[in-house]
Amino acid sequence: MSGRSITVAILGATGAVGEEMLQILESSPLPIDTLRPMASARSAGATIEFQGAEITVEDLEKADFSGVDLVLSSAGAAVSKLHCPRAVEAGAVVVDNTSAFRMDEGVPLVVPEVNSEALKDHKGVIANPNCSTIQMVVALQPLHAAVGVKRVVISTYQSASGAGREAMDELRDQTVDLLNFRSPKTNVFPRRLAFDCLPHIDSLLADGFTKEELKMKQETRKIMSLPALPICATCVRVPVFVGHALSVNVELDGPLTPAAAVEILEAAPGLRVYPDPADYPMAQDAAGVDDVLVGRIRADDSVQHGLAMWIVADNLRKGAATNSVQIAERLHEMGEWS
Amino acid sequence: MSGRSITVAILGATGAVGEEMLQILESSPLPIDTLRPMASARSAGATIEFQGAEITVEDLEKADFSGVDLVLSSAGAAVSKLHCPRAVEAGAVVVDNTSAFRMDEGVPLVVPEVNSEALKDHKGVIANPNCSTIQMVVALQPLHAAVGVKRVVISTYQSASGAGREAMDELRDQTVDLLNFRSPKTNVFPRRLAFDCLPHIDSLLADGFTKEELKMKQETRKIMSLPALPICATCVRVPVFVGHALSVNVELDGPLTPAAAVEILEAAPGLRVYPDPADYPMAQDAAGVDDVLVGRIRADDSVQHGLAMWIVADNLRKGAATNSVQIAERLHEMGEWS
Repeated sequence: MSGRSITVAILGATGAVGEEMLQILESSPLPIDTLRPMASARSAGATIEFQGAEITVEDLEKADFSGVDLVLSSAGAAVSKLHCPRAVEAGAVVVDNTSAFRMDEGVPLVVPEVNSEALKDHKGVIANPNCSTIQMVVALQPLHAAVGVKRVVISTYQSASGAGREAMDELRDQTVDLLNFRSPKTNVFPRRLAFDCLPHIDSLLADGFTKEELKMKQETRKIMSLPALPICATCVRVPVFVGHALSVNVELDGPLTPAAAVEILEAAPGLRVYPDPADYPMAQDAAGVDDVLVGRIRADDSVQHGLAMWIVADNLRKGAATNSVQIAERLHEMGEWS
Repeated sequence: MSGRSITVAILGATGAVGEEMLQILESSPLPIDTLRPMASARSAGATIEFQGAEITVEDLEKADFSGVDLVLSSAGAAVSKLHCPRAVEAGAVVVDNTSAFRMDEGVPLVVPEVNSEALKDHKGVIANPNCSTIQMVVALQPLHAAVGVKRVVISTYQSASGAGREAMDELRDQTVDLLNFRSPKTNVFPRRLAFDCLPHIDSLLADGFTKEELKMKQETRKIMSLPALPICATCVRVPVFVGHALSVNVELDGPLTPAAAVEILEAAPGLRVYPDPADYPMAQDAAGVDDVLVGRIRADDSVQHGLAMWIVADNLRKGAATNSVQIAERLHEMGEWS
């Protein structure tokens, strides 16, 4: 990497993902000269720490993007739709961690381990995929490259932090209320999450699936360049603070033993493989980790060439902040801002 | 129903399932004359309440089964192996809620809604299936009868109570410890369950599956009389006290719309169907309920004739105590103890 140093704006700097972004950027090889944290008026004026300096959070509504090279946006789809075009117009490249542009034609949807070549064609906005999708494709892609993936069935175990910081607070408050025999309040989640599993993430669609389930289908197809890949997801929120887990059943195009799958996955980037069945990854292992953890790799003999896996990742890191920063780093390696 | 009144022994009367059994028996049409709660030496001497009377818990080791007509056993497989044969020898019929005899040739494995005809051939012991299996087959059987079931893929969300009362205490203690920034202790579960999902229930087998996952495969095949039905289960413990949920993807032999599936399930016994996608069952809805709750019924278009469902039940009730008592009631209707 070479070239000039850059100015980076963080949209949603005070949120759960924004906080992780700041931490990851501290040790990133990106040549950051100026960091400009931005947030809604409510959080503007607060200070965040970056590389030992205190920086005041700007009011996003009033922010001028002149001179900004890179925007990392993670403040919700509505905010991205409003402000990312402004940033692009001012000359910035935007890595957007919301669903605002993901399925737009011409917007690369990127997981660097899988399809960083898609970055070449960007027009100012690069989309960061849905958290559950990211951790799944990091494990699926090497298997697809080796033998071909034919069908994927997923059930997710998604943590509260996927819905933001207020959702984490609600899980904590509900838990404390229940343990103290008080009625828990529900504001962020559609129903009580504490000590229960909530099979409803994002809005409900006409066919009975949720938007989260549709995202996993559409985004996986786009990232892997398999527009017709058969996928069925059931997305479930679980009473966990950080870390998503996925139970994945894959049908492959050809034979692959669990041992051979382990070997392929161990050689692939971004993965930490748990080959011993007695040792399996959980959310508590993924917290603060940038890799995707894969374990419980078994032969699914209920179908020809079936494989079952358990895939865990820190949804705030690889599922969001890490992947966004990795996209920016890859752009830089490819000559952006040189 | 007619005939004489009966003497019922409860093995494991002070456990999580035993307690539910006592409650369910209070309103059962079984003509119970004498109830004899039994437990390990540790719990013997305690008293339980049944129909307004206080009854002292007997030490199972020393218990004489003479005169006992029905034994409801739920004190672990080792206890059942030791004491159920004694009870049968003394003339009792045993409904055993452990894995001790489930796969034994000649032992009926029964979910009354599915295969009560298997009760005709019993030789003294009837096995009550695994909790997750019970709630699944109640929903699968009517679909199988209508169009045929070809393959089943399951991911479970199983509550702590499936591992007994001490497991529920451990979940509570771990939760309180974490909320108070103390290190949680782990004794009952292999790893920390509080605020995490544990993909390890029962012992690990050589092929990487767990015994719980094998049970779901083998028991479903036996109950539904489909010895080669392709099934793959991933069994996961979640930080919930009571109530198991299952995410189930079924391949059927023929076409079936979600609306038609709803109609079939609504007409089937033991089920409460949630046809509205915006209304879905959770563990909090299942607590204390004897029915199996089915919702999120969707077309799984990733395969021909695919259907996805979300199945929830109180694992201590229909998953254990309710099903055992229902078996006994069915036996009585069929003339046992007449």
